[in-house]
Amino acid sequence: MSAAGQPTSKVAFQGEHGAFSEDAARKLLGSQAITVPFRKFDDMFDAVSTGQADAAIVPIENSLAGSVHQNYDLMMEHELTIVGETYLRIVHNLIASPGVPLSGIRRVYSHPVALAQCGKFLRANKQIEAEAAYDTAGSVRMIMASGSPTDAAIAGHSAAIFYGAEVLAEGIEDNPENFTRFLLLTRSGGSSQLAATAQTERRKTSIVFRVANTPGALYKALAAFALRDVDLCKIESRPIEGRPWEYSFYLDFEGDQRDVRVDRAIAHLAEMAESIRVLGSYPSASY
Amino acid sequence: MSAAGQPTSKVAFQGEHGAFSEDAARKLLGSQAITVPFRKFDDMFDAVSTGQADAAIVPIENSLAGSVHQNYDLMMEHELTIVGETYLRIVHNLIASPGVPLSGIRRVYSHPVALAQCGKFLRANKQIEAEAAYDTAGSVRMIMASGSPTDAAIAGHSAAIFYGAEVLAEGIEDNPENFTRFLLLTRSGGSSQLAATAQTERRKTSIVFRVANTPGALYKALAAFALRDVDLCKIESRPIEGRPWEYSFYLDFEGDQRDVRVDRAIAHLAEMAESIRVLGSYPSASY
Repeated sequence: MSAAGQPTSKVAFQGEHGAFSEDAARKLLGSQAITVPFRKFDDMFDAVSTGQADAAIVPIENSLAGSVHQNYDLMMEHELTIVGETYLRIVHNLIASPGVPLSGIRRVYSHPVALAQCGKFLRANKQIEAEAAYDTAGSVRMIMASGSPTDAAIAGHSAAIFYGAEVLAEGIEDNPENFTRFLLLTRSGGSSQLAATAQTERRKTSIVFRVANTPGALYKALAAFALRDVDLCKIESRPIEGRPWEYSFYLDFEGDQRDVRVDRAIAHLAEMAESIRVLGSYPSASY
Repeated sequence: MSAAGQPTSKVAFQGEHGAFSEDAARKLLGSQAITVPFRKFDDMFDAVSTGQADAAIVPIENSLAGSVHQNYDLMMEHELTIVGETYLRIVHNLIASPGVPLSGIRRVYSHPVALAQCGKFLRANKQIEAEAAYDTAGSVRMIMASGSPTDAAIAGHSAAIFYGAEVLAEGIEDNPENFTRFLLLTRSGGSSQLAATAQTERRKTSIVFRVANTPGALYKALAAFALRDVDLCKIESRPIEGRPWEYSFYLDFEGDQRDVRVDRAIAHLAEMAESIRVLGSYPSASY
C-alpha cells in the first residue's frame, strides 16, 4: 500500500516512458499502476515470472498491423495468466521541441510501422524526410535531447507530455481505425486486485489448444463451443515450431471459465485436443 | 518472349534489389522473372492491377513475426488471383564492405524486425551498436555507398552479392525456424504461364469469407469442409473495418477449386456466408 492508502503495483511495459503501452496500462489500471519500462518483450515476461514486476501490459493485436505473434509465443513459454484487456486507439502526432514551427521541420524520426501509417501526411509534406528509429516515444526523447530545430518525431500524445515536447500536428495517421488490443498478465495464482478498476458485466476467456493434423479436427474442436452456443470472439492459428503444417489455435470466447457452459465446453475440447491450456478469464473491454 | 526464346514476365516486389522478396520470386519462377522493385506494398498491387507488372510476389506470413495483415487487406481491395506460393528460409548475415574485419565493426544497420531476430549475436558483440533502418537490402546499399569501415548491415546473402559486399558472419539469427510464406499474384483471368516452373501434384485453394456474428457461425462454415474431408491448412481472422467484433476469415485448404469435393464445399459455404471470394487455386509448396 502506498502512503495515500492506494494499492500500488509495478506494471512492466515495453518501450520508453510515453509509449502507447504505458497509456494502455493507465487506461486499464489508473493510478494503481507504477509503470516500469523494459526494452524487450522477453524481459517483461521474465520480470513478471520472477516477481520483479506484478504484471505486464502486452500488445497482442493491432487492427492494421495484425497480431503480435511474438507475444502469443511468449505466453506459451511462460505460466502467466490473463487478468484484463483493453483497446487503445492509436493516434500519431508530429512532435517537436517547443517553439519550433512546422515549416522548419526537415526530418522526422519514428518506428517504421508508425511512419508507414502516416504515409499521406509524409507525401503531403515532401520537405520532411522520414528516418526509421527503434520506437515512437524514444524518438521524442531523442529529438528533445538533440534540440535540433529541424527534427521532429511521430509518437503518441503522452510522449510529448512526458518529454515536454510540443504537438505540431495531431492525428496524422492515414487510417483512424487504428486500435491496439493489450492484455494484462500476472503470475498464475497471484493477486487479482490489479483488474479491480474494470467495471463490466461481460467476461471473456482465452485458451490455447492443439489438435491432431487430421481433416475435420478444428471443426470437431469448435463443436465443443458451437453445441453450447458459446460465442467465439477471435481465433488465431500459430505454426508449431519444428512441426511444419501444424498449428496451435488461440481462441477468445464470451464467458467465464467458472460458468457451467464454458467449463463443460473446455472439458469437451480437452477430450479431443492433444493439449489445452486456459490462459485466463477476465472482464471484456470494447473498442 | 526474350531473345533467348524464354518467356519473360515482370514481377513486382517490395524493397530494394537483394531483398528476401526478390529471392522468393527467383525461387518460384527462376529465370522467367524480371524483378522490379517497389517501395510500398500498395504500389506493387497497383502495378499489377494496371498492367504495369505481370505479377507481384507478396510476403503473407513469417513463422516468427506472424501474418502480414496489410497484404491480406490489399488482397481484399484488389481483384488479383493467387497463382503460386513458396516458403523461403530467412537467413540473416552480418555484411560489410570487402576487406573490413569483423573486429572493426562498431555499428550495424537493419530493419528493426531483423535486428530483433539477431538479439543473441548483438548481445555477444556489445561493441556493435544496432541502428534501425527501412529495410535489410537497403541497409547494405547504404553502407556500401558510405564505405565506412566501421559500419555493417544485417541482410540476406543476395543483398551482399548484389551490392558487392562481403558476408562477415553467416546465419546470425537467433532462431533458424524462420520462414516466410510468399504468394504470387496476377490479374484475374490473366495468363498462368508464370506458375509453370512449379512441379507438384498437390494443389491448394485460398478463399476469404464473412459470416454473421452469431454463435456457431464459424463452426457451421467449417462444416462445409469437414463433412467432405477437405483438409484445412490455415485459418486467419481479420477484423472488418467499421464493424468492431466482426471478422473476415481467410482459409487455405488442400485441393483445387475444380475438384468436385472442393467445388461443392465452396457452394455449401456460399449458402451460409454473407460473402465469399475464391482468391485462387495453385500448386502447394513445402517448407
